[in-house]
Amino acid sequence: MSTTGVTAPKGFSAAATSAGIKTSGKPDMAVVVNEGPKQAAAAVFTRNKVFAAPVKVSREVIKGGALQAVVFNSGNANACTGAQGVEDAKAMQQLTAAGIGADASHIAVCSTGIIGDVLPMDKVESGIGVVVKQLGDHGADAAVAIKTTDTVAKEVVVEGDGWTLGGMGKGAGMMAPSLATMLVCITTDADVTSQALQTALESAVATTFNTLDIDGSTSTNDTVIAMASGASGATPTQEELDAAMQDACSQLAAMMQSDAEGVTKRVAITVEGATDDAQALNAARAIGRDNLVKTAMFGSDPNWGRVLAAVGMADAEMDAENISVTFNGHTVCEQSAGAPGARDVDLSGADIEVVVNLGTGGQGSATVRTTDLSHAYVEINSAYSS
Amino acid sequence: MSTTGVTAPKGFSAAATSAGIKTSGKPDMAVVVNEGPKQAAAAVFTRNKVFAAPVKVSREVIKGGALQAVVFNSGNANACTGAQGVEDAKAMQQLTAAGIGADASHIAVCSTGIIGDVLPMDKVESGIGVVVKQLGDHGADAAVAIKTTDTVAKEVVVEGDGWTLGGMGKGAGMMAPSLATMLVCITTDADVTSQALQTALESAVATTFNTLDIDGSTSTNDTVIAMASGASGATPTQEELDAAMQDACSQLAAMMQSDAEGVTKRVAITVEGATDDAQALNAARAIGRDNLVKTAMFGSDPNWGRVLAAVGMADAEMDAENISVTFNGHTVCEQSAGAPGARDVDLSGADIEVVVNLGTGGQGSATVRTTDLSHAYVEINSAYSS
Repeated sequence: MSTTGVTAPKGFSAAATSAGIKTSGKPDMAVVVNEGPKQAAAAVFTRNKVFAAPVKVSREVIKGGALQAVVFNSGNANACTGAQGVEDAKAMQQLTAAGIGADASHIAVCSTGIIGDVLPMDKVESGIGVVVKQLGDHGADAAVAIKTTDTVAKEVVVEGDGWTLGGMGKGAGMMAPSLATMLVCITTDADVTSQALQTALESAVATTFNTLDIDGSTSTNDTVIAMASGASGATPTQEELDAAMQDACSQLAAMMQSDAEGVTKRVAITVEGATDDAQALNAARAIGRDNLVKTAMFGSDPNWGRVLAAVGMADAEMDAENISVTFNGHTVCEQSAGAPGARDVDLSGADIEVVVNLGTGGQGSATVRTTDLSHAYVEINSAYSS
Repeated sequence: MSTTGVTAPKGFSAAATSAGIKTSGKPDMAVVVNEGPKQAAAAVFTRNKVFAAPVKVSREVIKGGALQAVVFNSGNANACTGAQGVEDAKAMQQLTAAGIGADASHIAVCSTGIIGDVLPMDKVESGIGVVVKQLGDHGADAAVAIKTTDTVAKEVVVEGDGWTLGGMGKGAGMMAPSLATMLVCITTDADVTSQALQTALESAVATTFNTLDIDGSTSTNDTVIAMASGASGATPTQEELDAAMQDACSQLAAMMQSDAEGVTKRVAITVEGATDDAQALNAARAIGRDNLVKTAMFGSDPNWGRVLAAVGMADAEMDAENISVTFNGHTVCEQSAGAPGARDVDLSGADIEVVVNLGTGGQGSATVRTTDLSHAYVEINSAYSS
């Protein structure tokens, strides 16, 4: 048995191929199959009102309650492709279903890549024809085939007591570049219900992928799918399942942050002293999305004034004259004014931890993970499509 | 009489000097005085909850209803400077008042530059001592002295029927870099009330500075002040005053857009077919702030898919399957899918006009002006403070 990624748990097979959707010829199609004996499933999708055809189709699959396999392609998001796009996503379901002997309504579809181009269905059809014949312990290959601007494949394995949870992911965050959609596939051989899986998934996503905010842009295709085969025969408690799911999602989110487009710094922004956690999250997001904060981080510049300017526009209560800020544990701002030595704090390392206290005396807190805004980010995103 | 900027209207004098606040030795202090006979005034300030000491002090002046002069410094924003900052801003009022023989409570203060450093008050005091002795037709010098990252000084003159309106401004937008605060000073020799001036100013700001959104960052110091001397003896109608104010603010906003940090493209984003104007503005802002849209513009890339991904997250009703987009008049997206030739539209020029129809059938519309996100933006903002 493979010990990596989605085929680490018992009851799962996978395969990948180069179908020619990417002009580079790199791997661009994969399938992950739940061989059972059970087929519990859960998923969360993008909140974007403009969502891609595969999201539309996969939502229906999850609603139907039965998921046997997920077919992936990279290089083309099949987003903003109208009625043709929906037809193509359904064709991907049908081709995969025919290949593995399943019902088309039990196949989820995930696509990632450029928005607005119709899929080259002749290549997709050939690719599906190949992968369904090569199913095996190929989780590692599948993780490579879903990459777009990712520089490394992202896999995780979490061991439970007699059961295993595995996963693969790609992209730079739930709030991800629209050309580097976040896709995640989690598998487990635990014998758990779809409901238990959905509970664990939603809880884990809230504090991992949903607080990873690379550039404030939310994709049309973001999808996180979890499947349980029951093949281990072990049934963890909800708490055990939650903990493993949290661990796996947290690891994948950290890999995405480290591999985000143009990243030179990993930045964690914690807001404390807010009225409640939701307001703390609003404030942390406002800081994490501010281009002036992000360019200062790129320059290793302890420019705490930009943090205050950013948080001052957040939808959160604050005592504007009693805000404090630390950078990597050094106090740089107290009572909304500079602390001694604030301009000399060394931020030249790859990790920067920012903690902001809003001074309300409340117990609300939240953390958002982001990156700096670098020349490489501009380069990657100004030159991608053409 | 000077024919430029704030000293173009009768009844105004100005002066500027290099006080040494900027380490470069460039001009960094100015004063603009309303010599009367009347002293009507109006102002709008930053909406940031974290606002600078000079904003706090100037708000009180405007509330008091009498404004005789404005003292400016660049190189230091006197923001996030605590009680000392307020004391320093009040000292600037008192020193200016003493120099021109006025009441300290009639002097507004505007500061721009780095956040979080205490003002070098010895230099400020010397600078004020110089400018109050050199008052004259020096509007052009004042416009230079308020610059920070601006590459050009920004002045405007609008001629009325027997009266004149002048102005100067600096910065990159109401939603401006926190280190390139927007400051604007409008003067007129029309004989109008503070109320008429405030009405005209608020109306003009709403569709000019408030829809200029360079990077979504709102400064701690943004201030727009208007003063009327009545020295022409002419009293325009409210409509005439509104029109001149709109013209002046529109011209200054256009200058700021053209001189925004790192700009290589001027981008106008119009949203139509929204339920109402407010929702159209939300949608236009969401597009204008999206880093992926802005980097695509830098790359002259007609990547309409990023526009759809950005607008899909806006707080606005839309028919997600009936959105259309044009770039410079060429249809690139119809019914939320690509139009023929969309990838070939030439965006290599300096001006890009994006029109998005949300497809609701509503009459709501709004325009936001922004710029591309370039290497120069990253360079300027990662290397500024140190």
